[in-house]
Amino acid sequence: KDRARLLITCNDQPGIVAKISKVLYEHGANIVQSDQYSTDPSGGTFFMRVEFELPDIERKKGELEKDFEPIGKELQMKWQFSYMNQLKRMAIFVSKQDHCLLDLLWRYQSGDFFCEIPLVISNHPDLREPVESLGIPYYYIPVNKDNKPEAEKQQLELLKKYNIDFVVLARYMQILSPDFIKHYRHRIINIHHSFLPAFVGARPYERAYERGVKIIGATSHYVTEDLDEGPIIEQGVKEVSHRYNVEDLKRVGRTIERDVLARAVQLHLEDRIIVHGNKTIVF
Amino acid sequence: KDRARLLITCNDQPGIVAKISKVLYEHGANIVQSDQYSTDPSGGTFFMRVEFELPDIERKKGELEKDFEPIGKELQMKWQFSYMNQLKRMAIFVSKQDHCLLDLLWRYQSGDFFCEIPLVISNHPDLREPVESLGIPYYYIPVNKDNKPEAEKQQLELLKKYNIDFVVLARYMQILSPDFIKHYRHRIINIHHSFLPAFVGARPYERAYERGVKIIGATSHYVTEDLDEGPIIEQGVKEVSHRYNVEDLKRVGRTIERDVLARAVQLHLEDRIIVHGNKTIVF
Amino acid sequence: KDRARLLITCNDQPGIVAKISKVLYEHGANIVQSDQYSTDPSGGTFFMRVEFELPDIERKKGELEKDFEPIGKELQMKWQFSYMNQLKRMAIFVSKQDHCLLDLLWRYQSGDFFCEIPLVISNHPDLREPVESLGIPYYYIPVNKDNKPEAEKQQLELLKKYNIDFVVLARYMQILSPDFIKHYRHRIINIHHSFLPAFVGARPYERAYERGVKIIGATSHYVTEDLDEGPIIEQGVKEVSHRYNVEDLKRVGRTIERDVLARAVQLHLEDRIIVHGNKTIVF
Amino acid sequence: KDRARLLITCNDQPGIVAKISKVLYEHGANIVQSDQYSTDPSGGTFFMRVEFELPDIERKKGELEKDFEPIGKELQMKWQFSYMNQLKRMAIFVSKQDHCLLDLLWRYQSGDFFCEIPLVISNHPDLREPVESLGIPYYYIPVNKDNKPEAEKQQLELLKKYNIDFVVLARYMQILSPDFIKHYRHRIINIHHSFLPAFVGARPYERAYERGVKIIGATSHYVTEDLDEGPIIEQGVKEVSHRYNVEDLKRVGRTIERDVLARAVQLHLEDRIIVHGNKTIVF
Repeated sequence: KDRARLLITCNDQPGIVAKISKVLYEHGANIVQSDQYSTDPSGGTFFMRVEFELPDIERKKGELEKDFEPIGKELQMKWQFSYMNQLKRMAIFVSKQDHCLLDLLWRYQSGDFFCEIPLVISNHPDLREPVESLGIPYYYIPVNKDNKPEAEKQQLELLKKYNIDFVVLARYMQILSPDFIKHYRHRIINIHHSFLPAFVGARPYERAYERGVKIIGATSHYVTEDLDEGPIIEQGVKEVSHRYNVEDLKRVGRTIERDVLARAVQLHLEDRIIVHGNKTIVF
Repeated sequence: KDRARLLITCNDQPGIVAKISKVLYEHGANIVQSDQYSTDPSGGTFFMRVEFELPDIERKKGELEKDFEPIGKELQMKWQFSYMNQLKRMAIFVSKQDHCLLDLLWRYQSGDFFCEIPLVISNHPDLREPVESLGIPYYYIPVNKDNKPEAEKQQLELLKKYNIDFVVLARYMQILSPDFIKHYRHRIINIHHSFLPAFVGARPYERAYERGVKIIGATSHYVTEDLDEGPIIEQGVKEVSHRYNVEDLKRVGRTIERDVLARAVQLHLEDRIIVHGNKTIVF
Repeated sequence: KDRARLLITCNDQPGIVAKISKVLYEHGANIVQSDQYSTDPSGGTFFMRVEFELPDIERKKGELEKDFEPIGKELQMKWQFSYMNQLKRMAIFVSKQDHCLLDLLWRYQSGDFFCEIPLVISNHPDLREPVESLGIPYYYIPVNKDNKPEAEKQQLELLKKYNIDFVVLARYMQILSPDFIKHYRHRIINIHHSFLPAFVGARPYERAYERGVKIIGATSHYVTEDLDEGPIIEQGVKEVSHRYNVEDLKRVGRTIERDVLARAVQLHLEDRIIVHGNKTIVF
Repeated sequence: KDRARLLITCNDQPGIVAKISKVLYEHGANIVQSDQYSTDPSGGTFFMRVEFELPDIERKKGELEKDFEPIGKELQMKWQFSYMNQLKRMAIFVSKQDHCLLDLLWRYQSGDFFCEIPLVISNHPDLREPVESLGIPYYYIPVNKDNKPEAEKQQLELLKKYNIDFVVLARYMQILSPDFIKHYRHRIINIHHSFLPAFVGARPYERAYERGVKIIGATSHYVTEDLDEGPIIEQGVKEVSHRYNVEDLKRVGRTIERDVLARAVQLHLEDRIIVHGNKTIVF
């Protein structure tokens, strides 16, 4: 596929679109989709996502990027090209619950996700079978209070060895250390089983039951040092009633969780998310 | 209408339904709708709502209630009959925002709500016109730090004078004192402009904006001494995106608020809510 | 589990609940949940679902059913007891698409569904692996214009041999003959990939795309002789936009289909559905 | 407000964005928001909506439009500038039901809608009061089989006299003639009280009840010569159950209708809709 995406963040100022679209046009690119957003037209921050087609892109992309650089510097941008013929490499971390993992694997296998899944890492041996049956290596790395730094070192080495672009925590029930997170800043996607910021932390379904809420939810977000406080990517909800006990909430919650996580992963794979402060722009 | 409702709470035990339905049957009542719920069949709490038709109910209800009493005492119930020919009397408290008030008035006028609205009380003079144009008295009682006890005294006297059954806070921006609440325990319905327990307290839309949530909501609940912590009756949500500024969130939120509040009021009017601990059973 | 359910349909008349609850009580049953509905209190049809616990049910159920019979005849009921220790036996029919099948299998395996799946029948060989890996027999029975009566004969023999209670069409792309349907009246659940009655028949996503709808949906219903016209059990929807091409609609649709079908199967497994005319009462 | 919007439709081809953004930039405009969509990057149709700020726009817009013309012609565009300081003029047609009318008036009055409402036309006298109390003229023009052409002539004269930009049918229960529609092509917004294409035509709630659907909806669309077949702008739905009789469906439906119609009007007011064939692009 001769298709690519360009993500841009800079201070808002007149002429940004004109300059960017001119350089793309001069290199023969056809803009297929373009979205932009500005926090404030006077003095705010400007965000843009451009998807374009460029015949013979593999040969031409070097020159395009080189010619783009002066504009990027002039407008003091942060920018990033990504190419659809370079599939993103996604690692999945999982514990014992299988619903998010199975859904991700199904979407991968059915062709919904354009990505590679070079490995799955788990702190439990339970889910080896569905992973290995797809030919994906499954690494069982137990984690406990004492070996955590060592376990994370192993995990990071595997991510490096497999050249991983981003990590998905598919109900991985361990808190990652700040040091780990630093290596994959805004590249670790978690699914939290509540409607954040409600029920931050442990046992959200139990607490939802106790509070007597009439709607439950799930939230996918990028992991930061502050537990469940990272930039929110996507949320989903479902109505419940007094008839739902904690087990019912968990059962209904599982289908929310897998859907919300899958949508977040899809958005990330399509380069539709820009993180700004502690929030996301989702194009 | 010869229709009535019976709400019951008691310890679960065999034979409750048989005993209740027998006495109703013997008095000539036809059960039109019946719902029940038990927190736990062995040793839990049992809740029931029965809606029945009883020809010539006005004449017969005295005897029915008298004959029901021994069963109620035997099963150690809390129970309550209510009759559809006795319209509930609802007072509305409002401040400056009109959307919830106008929606309640429209549903009242269009016949959706079977109730009377004998008065509206406000701490501002602004919304007098739409209220008085329907022939409903509008009482302007300013509230500030210094006169609050005096203002609540006036309010309570009005509620007593007008024989009010329950109070709806239609975006009333004052906190009621514990003393006031005690007079209308589980009979004051509030609409909070967030998806509780997220964003308890002031400025929820501003905080939702800062947190970058992708869904906003509103919650109706019975007012208790703990701010925004009372039993939840109904919740509603709507998807938003990074494009929504605080004003947009408030605009979208207004339509959620009025819908959620109206549904809660409807449930209360139809005697569909039983409060149990800090939760609601909604039949 | 000493739990059972009783489904009832009869003409509405005073005393039904009293009589039913009395006989249950006299046999030592404790009503755990009870729902009823009447199309019209005077002269309508009455529906009831009672879930009850009866210690030592396996031994006592014969006597209970015997003593219930006179009441059933007196009130001219249709009634049906079902017992939770007798798992329902569900056959799945599938073609090439795997999403509904996999979701049903996952819910079965994870314990969400209380049922047995004695076999899967398909007109294609493709999905053998995930079925057999759970130890469930997979019967590949090709169907074409010429062999259809023969194929259905084979299918019916298998259903009989395996003592099947009901059939789920998990995106089975063949129309069943009226003769086949007659054997499993209101016991064949289909998932149609549109929001019925919109887009009855073939190619609903293509037609939804052409019509430019802003919401798509899926519908589960009992199969009758009239294609896509049977009693609706459950529906689900999702917002879409002009950006969704037919493939996108199908992708989003798949997650609606599997959820809606799973909810319908769950309702059927819990004996929550009564068919009345061409509509369902869902308790 | 020095803000304007530009809507564009043309054949897709490289360089469109570059050329448009260049001319805007050269006239001092700052692009605030920009959306585009292409049915197919090679040989499809290209759509774009640009919102921009141009200081001193009132003075400069003549020159901008003049300089834009050669580009528009070169790319064989259909294009349209609209300016936020020229409020759109909206006429409302209504019959007897008030919920859509009242909601539109409330949004107008509360400042949610940037528009003018110079008049309301009705075939019934009933809703005069809430309209005139806002100082808006209310024209009562009875319509029956015999006088329809004459009535439409009167209506068209009023629309012309008041310089109306677009018409909203807020539950106006008359079918407009093709001749009338021709005068306001894609400028008449209707609300149909069903989830189109389900239940085209009369009595949709009655038919939804008979079909036993589990979700009802409403659809706003531009009016064309084919009844209920025009380009869909927006749809909304709500879950219902067997407990809802026709009156309940209508009651719930009213809140869907008013919300869906209000969202469609808002999109039209913000120039977010481009009609393409019988579908809408909604930015």
